[in-house]
Amino acid sequence: MNSQKKDTKTAIFDIDKENDFPDWYTNIVRVAELADVRYGVKGFTPFPPWSTMSMNLMFDILEDALQRKDHLPMIFPTVIPEANLRKEAQHVAGFTPQVFWISEIGEGEKLEERLALRPTSETAIYPMYSLWVRSWRDLPMKRYQRVSVFRSEIKSTRPFLRGREFLWIESHNVYASHEEAKAQVMEDLEITQEVCTDNYGLPVMIFRRTQWDKFPGALNTYAADTLMPDGKVIQLPSTHDLGDNFAKAFDIKFLNKENETVHAWQTCYGPAISRIFGAMISIHGDNKGLRLPFKVAPYQVVIVPIFKGKDADAVLKYCLDIKKTLQNASFRVHLDKSEETPGWKYNYWEMKGVPIRIEAGPRDLKQNKIVLFRRDTMERETIDLKEMKKRVTALGKEIDENLHSMAAAKFEGLVVNAERLGEIDDALEKGKIARVPFCSIEMDGYPCAEDIEKNTRGEIRGIRIDIDDKPEGLCVVCGKVAEEVVYIARSY
Amino acid sequence: MNSQKKDTKTAIFDIDKENDFPDWYTNIVRVAELADVRYGVKGFTPFPPWSTMSMNLMFDILEDALQRKDHLPMIFPTVIPEANLRKEAQHVAGFTPQVFWISEIGEGEKLEERLALRPTSETAIYPMYSLWVRSWRDLPMKRYQRVSVFRSEIKSTRPFLRGREFLWIESHNVYASHEEAKAQVMEDLEITQEVCTDNYGLPVMIFRRTQWDKFPGALNTYAADTLMPDGKVIQLPSTHDLGDNFAKAFDIKFLNKENETVHAWQTCYGPAISRIFGAMISIHGDNKGLRLPFKVAPYQVVIVPIFKGKDADAVLKYCLDIKKTLQNASFRVHLDKSEETPGWKYNYWEMKGVPIRIEAGPRDLKQNKIVLFRRDTMERETIDLKEMKKRVTALGKEIDENLHSMAAAKFEGLVVNAERLGEIDDALEKGKIARVPFCSIEMDGYPCAEDIEKNTRGEIRGIRIDIDDKPEGLCVVCGKVAEEVVYIARSY
Repeated sequence: MNSQKKDTKTAIFDIDKENDFPDWYTNIVRVAELADVRYGVKGFTPFPPWSTMSMNLMFDILEDALQRKDHLPMIFPTVIPEANLRKEAQHVAGFTPQVFWISEIGEGEKLEERLALRPTSETAIYPMYSLWVRSWRDLPMKRYQRVSVFRSEIKSTRPFLRGREFLWIESHNVYASHEEAKAQVMEDLEITQEVCTDNYGLPVMIFRRTQWDKFPGALNTYAADTLMPDGKVIQLPSTHDLGDNFAKAFDIKFLNKENETVHAWQTCYGPAISRIFGAMISIHGDNKGLRLPFKVAPYQVVIVPIFKGKDADAVLKYCLDIKKTLQNASFRVHLDKSEETPGWKYNYWEMKGVPIRIEAGPRDLKQNKIVLFRRDTMERETIDLKEMKKRVTALGKEIDENLHSMAAAKFEGLVVNAERLGEIDDALEKGKIARVPFCSIEMDGYPCAEDIEKNTRGEIRGIRIDIDDKPEGLCVVCGKVAEEVVYIARSY
Repeated sequence: MNSQKKDTKTAIFDIDKENDFPDWYTNIVRVAELADVRYGVKGFTPFPPWSTMSMNLMFDILEDALQRKDHLPMIFPTVIPEANLRKEAQHVAGFTPQVFWISEIGEGEKLEERLALRPTSETAIYPMYSLWVRSWRDLPMKRYQRVSVFRSEIKSTRPFLRGREFLWIESHNVYASHEEAKAQVMEDLEITQEVCTDNYGLPVMIFRRTQWDKFPGALNTYAADTLMPDGKVIQLPSTHDLGDNFAKAFDIKFLNKENETVHAWQTCYGPAISRIFGAMISIHGDNKGLRLPFKVAPYQVVIVPIFKGKDADAVLKYCLDIKKTLQNASFRVHLDKSEETPGWKYNYWEMKGVPIRIEAGPRDLKQNKIVLFRRDTMERETIDLKEMKKRVTALGKEIDENLHSMAAAKFEGLVVNAERLGEIDDALEKGKIARVPFCSIEMDGYPCAEDIEKNTRGEIRGIRIDIDDKPEGLCVVCGKVAEEVVYIARSY
């Protein structure tokens, strides 16, 4: 019916994602212009508009979720005095090996005290919280900032997934009691689930991490993991119950209702949007390129006019009207008026992952119809123009649900019980996650964990807190009665 | 009529702005919790929520204006390799004295090449533009980023007005011809005028800067100045015609329609939002504190419930309904349910600069009325509840227009003609700007400028391009025929 059927469609992108994911990833980042690895500084990559616009939408969704829970935005300096960084012993041990240091200004002026580029902002923010928090009336204090952080990763870097500068939100909260702080951690995990699952389409498992794998200085770390196409898991947002450790190190005290001066309780939460973006494109993409969720696609709809010679003006006008109608309904829409052929445009915007394409030619115009193409299933439908807004709205939802379902389906049958050490690697070998009885995720279980990480290709992700897991049997390493059920996976 | 009349109103803030502006500024920044100077690193201040939320709104307005002109967002690394910074001779001379250098990582690892914290991003972005721009089809390339920049100011620092880290947007554009680049500069100035005047309420004069006061590496710099309460002018956004200087230094070439490889033409534009925020609060504020424009106020409306004992529930419910009605109409609204007295709340939110206050007590409830208070004029009116949305919308506009008019009125009679050197300081002494015949703002006028800056307290801001100025008479210094009319002012 449409003239585009006659176009020669030469694929702009065609890489077997399931069988060669590293190659797929490297190339889609380049071809879709998501990041440019030629910047010349290891781990630092410019993000051109396509990824920036999508990450901005991801940030907006997360900030909106935080603000609905009364978290307010703030902005702290990028630099942290060295003395601050050294105030919490575990924290300094955890982060200083990765710190970028500023020690000179201009033409050779040495700084009296070195400044760290923030690797995370506890040590920037908490000295000020010590001044800002005075009374129970100031609590809870729920604040966040949206900034870059800097860590000198020693492992090999990959755009979005592991960089030396990444984009995140860090939320820092102060409470009058440990109970309230723990409730904040649960709220963070709910936000994580809501945002990652309902908006970015990423299914997650939620873990309490082991004591040897927690945030430096925290009592406990909780994190959401999702599954990458290569069978490895990747950490999405993590949230930390800091107890009163940092309050003691940074002197954050308040006058409680009983008129006593006591230490406050804290949490922090750090969703790394650039990393989640990397996971999101990996999980949803297919051999033809990106498949972006409707909610975070820079363009939700691309319009491709189809015409030859004399029809040009009429078709373009028809397409412009379509664009205006959709824009007025607050859709993000792009009309591709370039000189390329329709077939080239189809390929290009499919590679770029635009969820919905509208095709319109002279016959569509005459009949007041349009063709809708959905990127997730590559299916076409012809509809009446007057149905457009309603159908685009519905289709956007369908696409997002479908992307999430396809990703969630990968979780099915993923977890395999392993009761002996040898069974763990068997499971990992098959791209599975091993569910294993284990002595303890407190520090006394550490020798067993070392054994596992030495003898298998996996690492312990912690205990699930999103499902009810009852430990049974004996620790897979030491043979003591298992107190926990842990999950072992290969990971990023 | 309202019970609040009986409240004792003790001023939370009361400083004579016109007579002691430095004191006013220092204190409003502290009392309104806009920035905290106790961070411990010169020129770096945390921005708590009130200023952050307002600056975020200012950013949104500016980004929206840029995007409507087809500028797309991108994000470049914060760090720049030293070799990049050294590629354009004037640029390196202009910026390296102010650069923060990263030369070490972690526990003593030295970097092979030092990294600069971006003082501005030409030298980060243009090496990539050299790779991204290949053909006339890639042009124009209109991109911007919203980031922090870092400059080691030697002058004394003040929050927002002069910091070592400031928040800005930098737009970097590439064109096929110098004409198009020059048109971009004019577009930037239109955006400046639209955003600063219509949205932030700041009247501006627009100048072409002198050749000795332009952006390092540019052909010409254009900038908007506004007037601070102490009679000094301050630069708001500036935009630069880079010619093909940077294209030559960074090898940005393209194949033109005639199939020749030629250098591209560039512009860059840098509105420093944190600085504009500092100017905005200074200009609009009064002795009682901030007066924020409706368009950029974190809360546009604050609701203060007025009740005693038994009326509490009914009044609070009335106020909650008011809040919901306004929120559903997309106003930013806050209901102050704290235990403070109404009088205290009035003072507090007046100091914070919330444009509109709604007061509602038992009698208002019974009559289905509310009291509207406007911060700019401190006037009250009583209206029917059903008129609320319409009246708040209209009042918001009135307030913004009034703030702008009051600021613009300060421009009247501000410019004074001076034809001899002695008259310049006479004018500046009276808080005026001197309008002066001058030989030339090209480099050959520099000796005269030095003379002026040595013998007066002012500096040459350049020639006005927003009005028609005809040079007459002789240069105020050298006595040659004046080719220009320049404006001399004390400045930040």
